[in-house]
Order: sequence, then structure tokens, then C-alpha cells
Amino acid sequence: MATNRSPEIRKDAIHNRWVIFSPARARRPSDFKSKTDASSSANTHTECPFCAGHEHECAPEIFRFPPESTLDWKVRVIQNLYPALSRDLEPLNAERGGGGQVTLRGSGFHDVVIESPAHPVHLADLSPAQIADVLLAYKKRIDQLRAFDSIKYVQVFKNHGATAGASMSHSHSQILALPVIPPTASARIQSMKEHFEQTGECAICQVKQEDLSIHESNHFRSIVPFAATFPFEIWIIPRHHSSHFHDIDSDMASDLGGVLKLMLGKMSLQLKNPPYNMVIHSAPLRAESTQLPFSHWFIQIVPQLTVVGGFELGTGCYINPVLPEDAAKVLREVSIQ
Amino acid sequence: MATNRSPEIRKDAIHNRWVIFSPARARRPSDFKSKTDASSSANTHTECPFCAGHEHECAPEIFRFPPESTLDWKVRVIQNLYPALSRDLEPLNAERGGGGQVTLRGSGFHDVVIESPAHPVHLADLSPAQIADVLLAYKKRIDQLRAFDSIKYVQVFKNHGATAGASMSHSHSQILALPVIPPTASARIQSMKEHFEQTGECAICQVKQEDLSIHESNHFRSIVPFAATFPFEIWIIPRHHSSHFHDIDSDMASDLGGVLKLMLGKMSLQLKNPPYNMVIHSAPLRAESTQLPFSHWFIQIVPQLTVVGGFELGTGCYINPVLPEDAAKVLREVSIQ
Ligand SMILES: Nc1ncnc2c1ncn2[C@@H]1O[C@H](COP(=O)(O)OP(=O)(O)O[C@H]2O[C@H](CO)[C@@H](O)[C@H](O)[C@H]2O)[C@@H](O)[C@H]1O
Ligand SMILES: Nc1ncnc2c1ncn2[C@@H]1O[C@H](COP(=O)(O)OP(=O)(O)O[C@H]2O[C@H](CO)[C@@H](O)[C@H](O)[C@H]2O)[C@@H](O)[C@H]1O
Repeated sequence: MATNRSPEIRKDAIHNRWVIFSPARARRPSDFKSKTDASSSANTHTECPFCAGHEHECAPEIFRFPPESTLDWKVRVIQNLYPALSRDLEPLNAERGGGGQVTLRGSGFHDVVIESPAHPVHLADLSPAQIADVLLAYKKRIDQLRAFDSIKYVQVFKNHGATAGASMSHSHSQILALPVIPPTASARIQSMKEHFEQTGECAICQVKQEDLSIHESNHFRSIVPFAATFPFEIWIIPRHHSSHFHDIDSDMASDLGGVLKLMLGKMSLQLKNPPYNMVIHSAPLRAESTQLPFSHWFIQIVPQLTVVGGFELGTGCYINPVLPEDAAKVLREVSIQ
Repeated sequence: MATNRSPEIRKDAIHNRWVIFSPARARRPSDFKSKTDASSSANTHTECPFCAGHEHECAPEIFRFPPESTLDWKVRVIQNLYPALSRDLEPLNAERGGGGQVTLRGSGFHDVVIESPAHPVHLADLSPAQIADVLLAYKKRIDQLRAFDSIKYVQVFKNHGATAGASMSHSHSQILALPVIPPTASARIQSMKEHFEQTGECAICQVKQEDLSIHESNHFRSIVPFAATFPFEIWIIPRHHSSHFHDIDSDMASDLGGVLKLMLGKMSLQLKNPPYNMVIHSAPLRAESTQLPFSHWFIQIVPQLTVVGGFELGTGCYINPVLPEDAAKVLREVSIQ
């Protein structure tokens, strides 16, 4: 990879923010020890509540796939035992205190999706069809959650490995249903709207640059975004315009199962099993019909290779030492059996 | 600390974003090993280029305090050897490509402030007068940088400890001069402007809530903000309205030196020497005079106690398990000799 190119600053047209690309930074020395890989620090799993046979140690189940299964379940969606928001609180209007202080009751839903009954099996180890089941479990749960008027946005996310935030090592993801539209979603809509007004096109439909492409399947395009915030960040984008992840059908889900397995496999092989986060960016549940033409859902996968420091905290601007074209080339070329 | 309270969502009126307060989350178990403290993983310092006597291993010096000193310097401001932005590039206008792609040349300045000649001495170990010297070195360097028309914003920040992003363990901070106004600064101005239009007051001048207060000095108020993004986050705010950090005088700098020493000391003692980031939030260099009444600089200190996961990446919304009133009480009461 070229490391002697000049730095450049690119604008992420989807989130309307600047990212600094600084290939020279990749050569920085460090007098701290390097980080461990995603799997190395997990304890033994004899005590794991997410394992088959330990279902009684979990918070209540919402549903499982297949529905009538016993110990042979494939996916379980359960309540989070330590929820960030509470499903037992009635939603209330915001309260305004002195000095512009606004408080909202913490009502909402916080669930965990257990992706496999077996402790050592991670998402990327499942078959495409099994990954499709996990995706269809997200869809089913979102369909239940969007029946609640108070829920404005549903965030599906996955933490893999301790430095990516995971407190549990058993393969799982989380679903948080929020009574507000979060900042990233509103910034994205605003920014995509501006682009649409200027060009008449959806900014994500327009992404077609050869040198950023990693892979194309029937329904999905996998790329490194033009202004990737993080090194080796991957976006999986539906090729046909679609606003909400929960509109996925079983045909798309099986295609996406294969694509996810491929992308996680390439990332793992190339970057030596890094901790990672995966998030689904979708439109707010009750997006207006005028917003749909410029709302396009996608999946973002971020391997945790760098640590966020004071600069990013202070500015909200990120420094990425790896140019997206270089990352895409590497990921395109790494072949997994 | 109470952990059985209901979750609530508070709006940060300064940055206009929601933060979820979820005391129950503090009890989550973890099957990963806990993190190390800030000092434990540093290598020996025989090879450290930031130590006195190794000046020739550093990128060029910009200035030192005291100016004519040799090995007995107190503070050195030097060029960053692996700069994120390049001081040798002429600034150019943004280039627009197809598909809404905007690229800007990576011109700017990236400096390192070495806070002490001795390797084991951290910022908090210095005397208030020595810390004041570090602050006056920031001021002097910003005064030099703002003479460049192309520079729109200067970010001063400090990473302490590997998990806070530091790649060097010798006590230092960094100054990055940017050709754009970064997202956090523009969001802050927009949000403070709305508050000002509604109330006629600066949102930061208005912060006066007793239960959020940690300490008051002649010139500064130290608080935990009402909607703190991170547990035990501290803000140090000038009591009299002031838009730019670089307007600090030597009287305020010596007061601030003492306050910083106290806050870092309390944080270290209470939270067992955590890795931390410190950032200075100031107004853009060429802020319009109409913006000054609602622009108020402050210092933010964030101990690294939690890991940011997929939820925060996806939503831009943070989950804080510690209520600001509880954090403020603990920090108010911890006494250091
Ligand atoms: N017996 C049981 N039954 C049901 N649920 C159980 C359970 N035991 C544990 N859980 C829940 O399982 C979840 C596991 O989630 P993760 O490992 O992905 O990260 P966690 O949510 O802890 O925090 C990470 O992700 C969040 C959100 O991104 C960040 O705020 C945080 O800092 C980061 O560490 C936890 O939320 C936990 O509450
Ligand atoms: N001999 C020498 N002379 C001059 N300078 C030298 C030098 N040797 C090293 N340096 C510079 O010293 C700096 C030390 O900075 P820090 O330890 O605070 O974090 P760093 O900038 O590496 O990255 C952290 O902070 C940034 C910004 O927040 C994040 O992007 C990143 O992920 C995180 O690890 C580095 O920038 C390095 O380039």
C-alpha cells in the first residue's frame, strides 16, 4: 500500500462529515503493546447463559427459530437482562427544566439476538442459510417493534470482541428500539436530502465507483465507502433502492447471508480476526413518503484496528490512515476457500 | 450509587444530542478480562524521543519554554513526525467529483506539545505553575497558527494511556490546525445559537446547577455536565463568558493550572488512574462577531471507562450508566492531599 501519498480530506456525502486520509500515519511507531485478537481473552464458556441448556439463566425469550424447537434451536431473541431502555415504562412527553434542560423517560426495548446455540460458533462460521435466519430474526423483531407508536427508530447492532465493546463472547447481536430518531439517522436523512435536491438521485444508488468495489451479488453491492471513517470499513448496500431493512424478503436474506459470510471471512483472514462492529442503517420507522426516495438502508462493518483519541472526541472528525481504494483492492483480492 | 433508578434520556443542549442514562447497565457482568490502567503497558523509556537529551530524534522544534534553555527545558512544541495534515501543501479549494464526491487537499499543521522533559512525569504530576506553562504553550502556538488564512479551527487534545489512543507514553498533547470547521464545532455553534435565540443567554454561562458542581475557583467552574456523554466526564468552564481559549491570560492560566491538577488528581484517585482524553472546545478562529455571545470555550476531560460499541457507532447516541449528579457528588467528595 502506498504510504508516501499526500494527505487528503474527503467529505462523506452520506453523513456530511469530513474524514482525514493520512497514509503517512500508518507508519507511526508505538511504545505500547499491541492489542489482542477478538477471540483471545474470552473466559471458558461453562458458565455462559447464552449457550443451549442455559436458557433459564437468561431474561425472558421473545421468540426462537424454529418456533417449536427445544434444545435444537438455531436463533433466540430474548430480552436484555440489563436493558438501556425499559419496556415497562409508559412513554411520556419530554420534560423541560431550567437552563434548556430536556429530559425524556427512558422507555423503549432492548433485546439480544443469540445467533447460535453453541458457544464457539461465531456469525461468520454459520452457513449462508443460518446467517439468513439471523437476518430474518432481526426483521421479525423489527416488525413487532414498529407496531408501537412510541418507537421512532430501531437500531440493530453487533459487537464482536472485547475492544469492539462486547461484554459477552457468545455470538450475539442486539436490537434497541428508541423513542427518538438518533443523530446519525437524522444527519443522514438531511445530507441525503441535500444530495437528492441537487442531483435528483439517491446518493447511495449512485455509488458505483469501480475502484471502491469489493464484490457484487444478485441483490447486494459490497464496497469500501469513498470517505470511509475507519480503515477497512465495509458497506453492504442493496442494489435496488430500498429504504427499510425490514422490507427484506427471504430471497434477499439468503443472498445477504452469503455476502455477509464472505465479507466477514475476507476481513477476518486479511486482518487476523479483528474485533468488529456491525450496524444496520435504516430509515426512521415512520419516515415520510417524501423522504423515501433518498433513504437507502445499508450494513456497515467496522473492524476495530485503531483507537479513537482526543482529536476525534473533540472534532467529530476522523483520521483514517488507509485510503479506501487501497482497502477495497486488498479486500477484493483476498480469497477465502 | 443508586443503580435501581429508571433509565432516562437527556438532551445535551450544547451539542444537541440525546444521551441515554441507564444506571442498571452498571451491573452488567462481563466474561472478558478487565482493562489495564493507563501506566501499566508502557515500555521502558530508554528509547523515548520525547525525553530530554533525545531532542535530535524528534521532528523539528517550533519553540520551547523557557526560550533559551538547553537540557533544562520545561515544555517543547515540535512538529509531529507523522502528521495527519501536511504543512508543506498549499491549501486548495475543494474538488468535486461525480456522485457528490468532495475532496480537499490535506493541508494544515499537526504539532506535539511535550509537557515535561522527564519520562515518568505526567501532566497531573506537574505543579500548577508548570501546568500553566503547558497551557500558555497551547495559547502561543494557536496565536501563531491563526495568522494563516487557510486555518479555520485549531483542536488541542491530549491522549493519556493506550486505550485512550496514545501511541507514546511520555506525557504530551497535540495541536491540529484544520482547513475546515469540524462537525462538533459547527453542531455546537448551531445548538448554542438556538438556545440563545430562545433564552437570550449563553447555554454554558447558564450552567449553575448545584448538584452537578465539583469545584469553583476564581476563574473556573468544574462540573459534570447535565447530559454527560461518558461516565465521570468533567467540564472546566470559564466563569466569565469567553469565546476563545487563546484569549486566556497568565492569571487565568495559573488558576486553570491548579484546577486541572485538582480535577486530574480527583479522577485518578477515584477511578484508579484511568486512561483519559482531554480536549479544548473553542470557537472557530474567525467566528463572526454575532456568534461570540453564544460561543463559550471549555475543557472536556473524559476518563476511558467504557468501550464504545455498535450502538454508538450506528446511532451517534451514547449510553452512560452513571448519572451526572452521582458522578459529581463522588468527584466533589474525593479529597486529595
Ligand atoms: N443472562 C442474560 N440474559 C439476557 N441478557 C444478558 C444476560 N447476560 C448479559 N446480557 C446482556 O447481553 C448483552 C451483551 O452485549 P454486548 O456484549 O454486545 O455488549 P454490551 O451491551 O454489554 O455493551 C457494549 O455495547 C454497548 C452498546 O453499543 C456499549 O454502550 C457498551 O459500552 C459496550 O460495552 C449485554 O447488553 C448484557 O446486558
Ligand atoms: N520522534 C517523533 N517526533 C515527533 N513526533 C513524533 C515522534 N514519534 C512519534 N511522534 C508523534 O507523537 C504523537 C503521539 O500522539 P498520541 O500518543 O497522543 O497518539 P497518536 O497521534 O499516535 O494517535 C491517537 O490519536 C489520534 C488522534 O486522536 C487517533 O487518530 C489515533 O487513532 C490514536 O491512536 C503521534 O501522533 C506520533 O506521530
